[in-house]
Amino acid sequence: MRAATVREEEIVVEEHPDPEPGAGEALVRVRAAGLNGGDMAQRRGLYPAPRGWPQDIPGMEVAGEVAALGEGAERFAVGARVMAIVGGGGQAELAVVHERLLMPVPDALGWPEAGGLPEVFTTAHDALFSQAQLRSGERLLVHGGAGGVGTAAIQLARASGARVTATVRAEELREQVARLGATVLAPDEFVEDGPYEVILELVGAPNLADNLQALASGGRIAVIGVSAGAKGELNLLALMAKRARIHGSTLRARSFEEKALAARALEREVLPLFESGTLEVPVADTFGLEDAAAAYSRFEAGAKHGKIVLLIGDGA
Amino acid sequence: MRAATVREEEIVVEEHPDPEPGAGEALVRVRAAGLNGGDMAQRRGLYPAPRGWPQDIPGMEVAGEVAALGEGAERFAVGARVMAIVGGGGQAELAVVHERLLMPVPDALGWPEAGGLPEVFTTAHDALFSQAQLRSGERLLVHGGAGGVGTAAIQLARASGARVTATVRAEELREQVARLGATVLAPDEFVEDGPYEVILELVGAPNLADNLQALASGGRIAVIGVSAGAKGELNLLALMAKRARIHGSTLRARSFEEKALAARALEREVLPLFESGTLEVPVADTFGLEDAAAAYSRFEAGAKHGKIVLLIGDGA
Repeated sequence: MRAATVREEEIVVEEHPDPEPGAGEALVRVRAAGLNGGDMAQRRGLYPAPRGWPQDIPGMEVAGEVAALGEGAERFAVGARVMAIVGGGGQAELAVVHERLLMPVPDALGWPEAGGLPEVFTTAHDALFSQAQLRSGERLLVHGGAGGVGTAAIQLARASGARVTATVRAEELREQVARLGATVLAPDEFVEDGPYEVILELVGAPNLADNLQALASGGRIAVIGVSAGAKGELNLLALMAKRARIHGSTLRARSFEEKALAARALEREVLPLFESGTLEVPVADTFGLEDAAAAYSRFEAGAKHGKIVLLIGDGA
Repeated sequence: MRAATVREEEIVVEEHPDPEPGAGEALVRVRAAGLNGGDMAQRRGLYPAPRGWPQDIPGMEVAGEVAALGEGAERFAVGARVMAIVGGGGQAELAVVHERLLMPVPDALGWPEAGGLPEVFTTAHDALFSQAQLRSGERLLVHGGAGGVGTAAIQLARASGARVTATVRAEELREQVARLGATVLAPDEFVEDGPYEVILELVGAPNLADNLQALASGGRIAVIGVSAGAKGELNLLALMAKRARIHGSTLRARSFEEKALAARALEREVLPLFESGTLEVPVADTFGLEDAAAAYSRFEAGAKHGKIVLLIGDGA
């Protein structure tokens, strides 16, 4: 099979042996595979894939058709449209995924949307609801509202009855983000718009002090991205006075059981909202597998509304 | 009545008008009133009492007898032994407290113990269980294990099946803290003893980086004291990699309803363990009300095992 491959911090497309499904696993003929911030870090050697996953093939999410089943796998039939978060190896023509990590692709979604759904919607859903326990009526601030996780978070929060403000750096993207149902601000305007019960931090440490200032009493900050910097000064007295908490999280480091539970939560709480048309997956751009390096460049250029997705095989 | 009083950042004892109980309130003839870190900050003008509480009389906890009842108050009879966290005004011969904030004093406890119980056991219980969700079998690290909150936290955690390590700066106190059931270390020895699922931070920001290093995956840090400094550098990437969270909390800023709920939780989950002898209130030293200034000096000198308590009236 052909696969995007990390060679000396560059993305090339190379031949690899076809993988084979083991017990409980499905072989997925990949149709679409989204790019994520983790892929960028992995390319630089900063974020290795967990053990048991391909180390040199990036790709943290896939959508495609079940091509074959390993012993005992029975949740999906051959030919079923499936999608999943994977520990690595998603940006390839074939991927092996345990059936407990697979989710059905909602009928309403095409391949580009399905390939860009799992990582950002699971990340946003987990951060907002499992960690920060966002409730109906509360105010949410999303830092970095235009990207994949940001657009997912805005939609999920709106669908659950929360009121959403988002900061968006690129002026030309603000109108599109506002159409998802958020009040959209420039990055330096958010403190006076507060207080917020929950802040989803996708930008990083530079916001730390202002976030605490803008937080409501009892508020929660969920940190899931630090593209603008990881280290910042924290005032613990301010944290105590606000009776606040700061969560950090990544999906990739989780155990198999936790990842399977997150997939079940998404099936139950999120996928029905795609069938009903309440949620959508904004796709900023698509690239063929052979153009994977260009897709990475596009991702890193920023200023995009939604996902960058590789279309593979018949997905293209 | 006589009361400890803040005058130009000093503690003096002065006459004040006797307070009178309003609807739902009890007038408490105070027998014992513990000192807390918040009193030290309040004396310096840094931590004012919440609205509706005496502003110039310090004291965040009391134990005593019900001397009179306001209209509709019915939870306790006149003469009942009661204790409570109060927003201020506890270090006086009389205090008015709403009956929903009062708890019964366990029969097994004398006045010095009862006067030193509410603040530290509520603080420790709330931080360990309501915030950090400490579970049986988990490992807890308490920074500052010899003081009031530290000794309460060690005992509560041990009683719930957790394994406890505590740092204690003063070498001469380590043996006493170990007798409460903790592995006791010098403040610079804790990282190699980890990882810990929960860290209770009573010392402050200087521990922040090492705490994250010593934390288990999925761990929780509860910050409720910053005596050694409030500001420190936080590495958000380390927070994400550990999938950790940092809580800050104070009791004083809470609403009436939250304070009443905390009192009910203590009645249900903690007070029975005093009746059974599982828990004790270590009292480091007691002072009469007229010696309040000396009690504050003793508190600020540190290196004490347990509480400093003022004994008032027949409590003395």
